[in-house]
Amino acid sequence: MDLPVLIKTLRNALQHDTLPLLREQLEDVHPADYAAALTEFSATELWSLLTVLPRAEQAEVFGYLPAEVQVSLAISVSRRKLSPIIRQMSSDERADLFNQLSDEQRDTLLPALAQAEREDLLRLSAHEEGSAGAIMTSDYALLPPELTVREAIEVLRLEAPDKETIYSSYVVDEARKLIGVVSLRDLILAPVSMRVDDLMNTDPIFASVELPQEEIASLIAKYDLLALPIVNSEHQMVGIVTYDDAMDVAAEEATEDFHKTATIGKLDGNVKNAGIGLLYRKRVFWLVVLVFGNIFSGAGIAYFEETIARYIALLFFLPLLIASSGNAGAQAGTLMVRALATGEIKLRDWGYLLGKECLVAGLLGLTMSAAVLGLGLWRGGADIAIVVSCTMMLVVMAGSLIGLSLPFLLSRFNLDPATASGPLITSIADVTGVVVYFSIATWYLGL
Amino acid sequence: MDLPVLIKTLRNALQHDTLPLLREQLEDVHPADYAAALTEFSATELWSLLTVLPRAEQAEVFGYLPAEVQVSLAISVSRRKLSPIIRQMSSDERADLFNQLSDEQRDTLLPALAQAEREDLLRLSAHEEGSAGAIMTSDYALLPPELTVREAIEVLRLEAPDKETIYSSYVVDEARKLIGVVSLRDLILAPVSMRVDDLMNTDPIFASVELPQEEIASLIAKYDLLALPIVNSEHQMVGIVTYDDAMDVAAEEATEDFHKTATIGKLDGNVKNAGIGLLYRKRVFWLVVLVFGNIFSGAGIAYFEETIARYIALLFFLPLLIASSGNAGAQAGTLMVRALATGEIKLRDWGYLLGKECLVAGLLGLTMSAAVLGLGLWRGGADIAIVVSCTMMLVVMAGSLIGLSLPFLLSRFNLDPATASGPLITSIADVTGVVVYFSIATWYLGL
Repeated sequence: MDLPVLIKTLRNALQHDTLPLLREQLEDVHPADYAAALTEFSATELWSLLTVLPRAEQAEVFGYLPAEVQVSLAISVSRRKLSPIIRQMSSDERADLFNQLSDEQRDTLLPALAQAEREDLLRLSAHEEGSAGAIMTSDYALLPPELTVREAIEVLRLEAPDKETIYSSYVVDEARKLIGVVSLRDLILAPVSMRVDDLMNTDPIFASVELPQEEIASLIAKYDLLALPIVNSEHQMVGIVTYDDAMDVAAEEATEDFHKTATIGKLDGNVKNAGIGLLYRKRVFWLVVLVFGNIFSGAGIAYFEETIARYIALLFFLPLLIASSGNAGAQAGTLMVRALATGEIKLRDWGYLLGKECLVAGLLGLTMSAAVLGLGLWRGGADIAIVVSCTMMLVVMAGSLIGLSLPFLLSRFNLDPATASGPLITSIADVTGVVVYFSIATWYLGL
Repeated sequence: MDLPVLIKTLRNALQHDTLPLLREQLEDVHPADYAAALTEFSATELWSLLTVLPRAEQAEVFGYLPAEVQVSLAISVSRRKLSPIIRQMSSDERADLFNQLSDEQRDTLLPALAQAEREDLLRLSAHEEGSAGAIMTSDYALLPPELTVREAIEVLRLEAPDKETIYSSYVVDEARKLIGVVSLRDLILAPVSMRVDDLMNTDPIFASVELPQEEIASLIAKYDLLALPIVNSEHQMVGIVTYDDAMDVAAEEATEDFHKTATIGKLDGNVKNAGIGLLYRKRVFWLVVLVFGNIFSGAGIAYFEETIARYIALLFFLPLLIASSGNAGAQAGTLMVRALATGEIKLRDWGYLLGKECLVAGLLGLTMSAAVLGLGLWRGGADIAIVVSCTMMLVVMAGSLIGLSLPFLLSRFNLDPATASGPLITSIADVTGVVVYFSIATWYLGL
């Protein structure tokens, strides 16, 4: 069913009071689509439409709702009504919701959960934001090593409804240390009397609970894993991160880096729903910082006021020279920032890449020089054409080499290389451009 | 084993001619790691190290090698030696490799394959680049609808070694039309005598073979799918795309959009390995286009030469005014480009977002005005301070509204919104900034 059709169906059911009929009508609608449709309704309507569904599906749809909608429901709906849904959610989604509530709201919600769920929730939400611990789930399948394949499949059959995945199962020793992984595929293929510890992969890929979540996502992508086991400092198994959560993390990381290219701070959630104040706060910091960065360009111009006053035609070329330098620098910087983020290049590659950039930027500079030579002749005569053309060559190269190096420099000092975004590089390139241009002009025109 | 340790082990084996011992030593090394280590060796060494492995693993490791290494091996190694590996590769990886070869190289490789593999390969590689067809695999598990659960599991057990996944199986009618999907989890949980067509989900999520691959990736992410069935225009099942390929597509798309923020053309493969000529070609086009865009700023300055000559102090503020306008515009544009790419916002949201941007940009403009007021007083006196401050307010708002609207405008005319990147917005904001600044100055200073 299309989203607009679905929304219309839901609206009709509300208006004509035919909610109970919905359950049958919507049997084949995917929880993600149902959740998307629900966001179009007010909190009260949303709650009526959600509770029409069978209990297990309520939790699933609730899990697909945007975080801010979940939180507003958690606040507005009574604990007695909400707790059955919360109890059915998967442990990682529950922890996510919990982390967004105030202390007071948490205290209201906690008593609604069973002892085991409560402990699990507190344990999961204790992990630092952005770490593996904060996105892992504790609903994973454990298998004792001494089981046979037949027994193992029986165990999984019983446990499946409560587990995030049964396609990967984990084997731990008495101290809960991770000793192996076995896939359902291997279990299905193996002779039924084989022992789990003979079948399992004894050298599984795993990660520490403190590893940043973007590194978790790249491990999962690199090894094509369905789920990655997470261990604590004693190598004890504490959770798993599944591929679907890794996909969400990768998308969020890409958005964050993308925003940084335009000096926008980290923005959680949807741009459409973000408040005016939040958007202002995420944008204002760097805008103001860069104003002060650009004072240096102004100062450069002021320093050469005499040259400019004598040859005011030089000003015509100023915007395109400094813009070209900034653009070439932004290109080089962006290539490096992304390649560092995806792991394609490492800090140690700087020298090699700098050498290559000299050649690429040299070619770019020559092309740009040629492009402005005619323009220089037309607007300012031979002398100015030579000045403009030489300046272009130099500033494109300077901009490119600065743009390429800045991300490495920031990385070297453990700062986020993505901060070396277009606007920062442009500001530095601008100053360079002004100084180079008017220096060459002053010298060549013999002022 | 760490990558440096692994590389050292391989290098030792080559030097001391102990290759046969490697097989046992490296049993637990993941194919992705082995492939990463192999890229450090020359083609001949790489081939010796690859063929030490058991046949099935050779294909797996080969599949993890970067595309350019695969192609160079395909060209340099004799057909007789290579064909067993090619035959073992999964069908989508084989088609990827095939698509990168010249016609002549394809003709050399094709006879090495069995009839069925050849037809499959030609069919897969006939699909348009960037479409679902180009990334799907034909190694999926089919189940006849009349089987019982017990029989279905037996079928999967037999077929598993040749299938990309057995966690999702597909049910088709006599005309090969997709009628259902059943997961291994459901099969394991169901009573063994239940029929597949009673168990299957009869309304599965599917996609057309022509759908762009980034939309395939978002469907898989949205519905948390392990694999998405692909159908042709007659609704016949033709392949599946698995979550791991979707992750790669999403990462590539993000890289492409990321590069576009700095006007870099689509770059396949690794930046580190890209040739000088390729990098030059991907960067030069927009750099030259933008030079001509910046001529308008130059023309704006030339038009106001008289004003500038009389109040040369105005020039001090020019870089920071036009940079602020461009930076604010780049922020607004980037927010929109990314949100349009992830589907968070649609074309119809433009009006609402424009209204919101008026408020955000207004606040930003006020802050920036205040920030430069003092600077204006210090450098130029009260009159210039007022001119600079008013200009800042106006150009930050103008830049933001242009930056926000440009991606929508491009989308509206079916152009890629990501083209509305920082440098393009900056160029437009520059012209606006120059004209607004000197117009206000000319008017207010009564020139």
